[in-house]
Amino acid sequence: KRGRVAERIDDLLCRGFRIIQDSEGFCFGMDAVLLANYALPAVREGSQLLDLGTGTGVIPLLLSAKTKARRLYGLEIQKSAADLAERSAALNGQEGRIQILRGDIRRIRDFPLSSRMDLVLSNPPYLKSGIRSKGEGRQIARHEILCSFRDVAVAASYLLKASGRFFLVHRAERLTDIVSDLRESGLEPKRLRMVHSRAGREAKLLLLEAVKGGRPQLHVEPPLIVYEEGGVYTEELLSLYRGEAYL
Amino acid sequence: KRGRVAERIDDLLCRGFRIIQDSEGFCFGMDAVLLANYALPAVREGSQLLDLGTGTGVIPLLLSAKTKARRLYGLEIQKSAADLAERSAALNGQEGRIQILRGDIRRIRDFPLSSRMDLVLSNPPYLKSGIRSKGEGRQIARHEILCSFRDVAVAASYLLKASGRFFLVHRAERLTDIVSDLRESGLEPKRLRMVHSRAGREAKLLLLEAVKGGRPQLHVEPPLIVYEEGGVYTEELLSLYRGEAYL
Repeated sequence: KRGRVAERIDDLLCRGFRIIQDSEGFCFGMDAVLLANYALPAVREGSQLLDLGTGTGVIPLLLSAKTKARRLYGLEIQKSAADLAERSAALNGQEGRIQILRGDIRRIRDFPLSSRMDLVLSNPPYLKSGIRSKGEGRQIARHEILCSFRDVAVAASYLLKASGRFFLVHRAERLTDIVSDLRESGLEPKRLRMVHSRAGREAKLLLLEAVKGGRPQLHVEPPLIVYEEGGVYTEELLSLYRGEAYL
Repeated sequence: KRGRVAERIDDLLCRGFRIIQDSEGFCFGMDAVLLANYALPAVREGSQLLDLGTGTGVIPLLLSAKTKARRLYGLEIQKSAADLAERSAALNGQEGRIQILRGDIRRIRDFPLSSRMDLVLSNPPYLKSGIRSKGEGRQIARHEILCSFRDVAVAASYLLKASGRFFLVHRAERLTDIVSDLRESGLEPKRLRMVHSRAGREAKLLLLEAVKGGRPQLHVEPPLIVYEEGGVYTEELLSLYRGEAYL
């Protein structure tokens, strides 16, 4: 319904990788970068992983640049975003490793991928309800219109091998929903890191690792602080964007 | 079975209040002080509150010193600890405000206190299993022998008025059990503060406030750090022990 006039190409600041995005659609943010970094140490040579609700594919793109994963899947329900993700994969010469699946998280069993993944990742819609974002694409990316967090957890559990790991970023205020739904889906929360905009403020986001069939014991890591008091990025954040943390 | 030879009297560093403890039994620690402070702003003139598993009564003693609560109950199953708590209440002239109940958290309905409390607090046994502590009294205080966390949550929900608040301190690694059990008991987690021994280390403890019938939305506060790098208490911790934070 709209042409390619609003397209832009952004540098991913790693090995020259680039991503095609729609300026009028949902563009990736810091949360995607945080999530890719959080999962990074768990991605091994030959790993298979899948990103649930991949949007324009930033997570598979970043992890294809940074790791030796064998196969990186992205599942996306929105055709326009999935098309961009596929074009970005080709733009970076990754069409052989990155595969974009078009479909619904709630119908994950339509894909014959049961217990096939070493890792699953997701940066799902954060918002339960309330004021809607502008534009249908942004609404679907930001609000639980087409899937609830429970749907995401159930899909992750279906896809993961025994002891496979699920990594997610979400709003800190949803913590109770998240850990309850994960456990009920057979995914035990094992590692949690709170993300605070500044030291001394409430946490905005959380990063979480859950293990399929893991035993209950949660490691609560030191918080991640995004900005110094002066408003500049902290050293840790800068190192993520510079790519130092994962080279 | 043992005499009073191991008794000691400690200063609570507030208005001259003192507590009688058994050196060979379970003595209160920093977690009780953190919990009393965490709940403090919620205690109003005329409040009724109850501490589940009060031990030697440190929580009601601290809150009787620091607030204008009308009535402070402590429930304790161990006779020796309950006796000490009652004697401490009298020692500080609080026998009219502090009432020690002898009984089992799992049989809370034996007490006609349904929906009577403005606040419930608990510093429950932390450990599920594993290496047992020395001495039966310490074992019951530290391990979930006589009650699980679920039992504590159910009891708190029974005791609280609508919109009444439950405050607890627990091991950070038990977070998933805790928020799941609270929600299933009708207590919605509303405020969470992680306690780290040092900045840059994993959290050891958590402080949590849940509201009976509250709507889901959790505020994750800035972490509480106990020690500076040099091993001395942080300013915030010192202010709690000096009583400044709650005078």
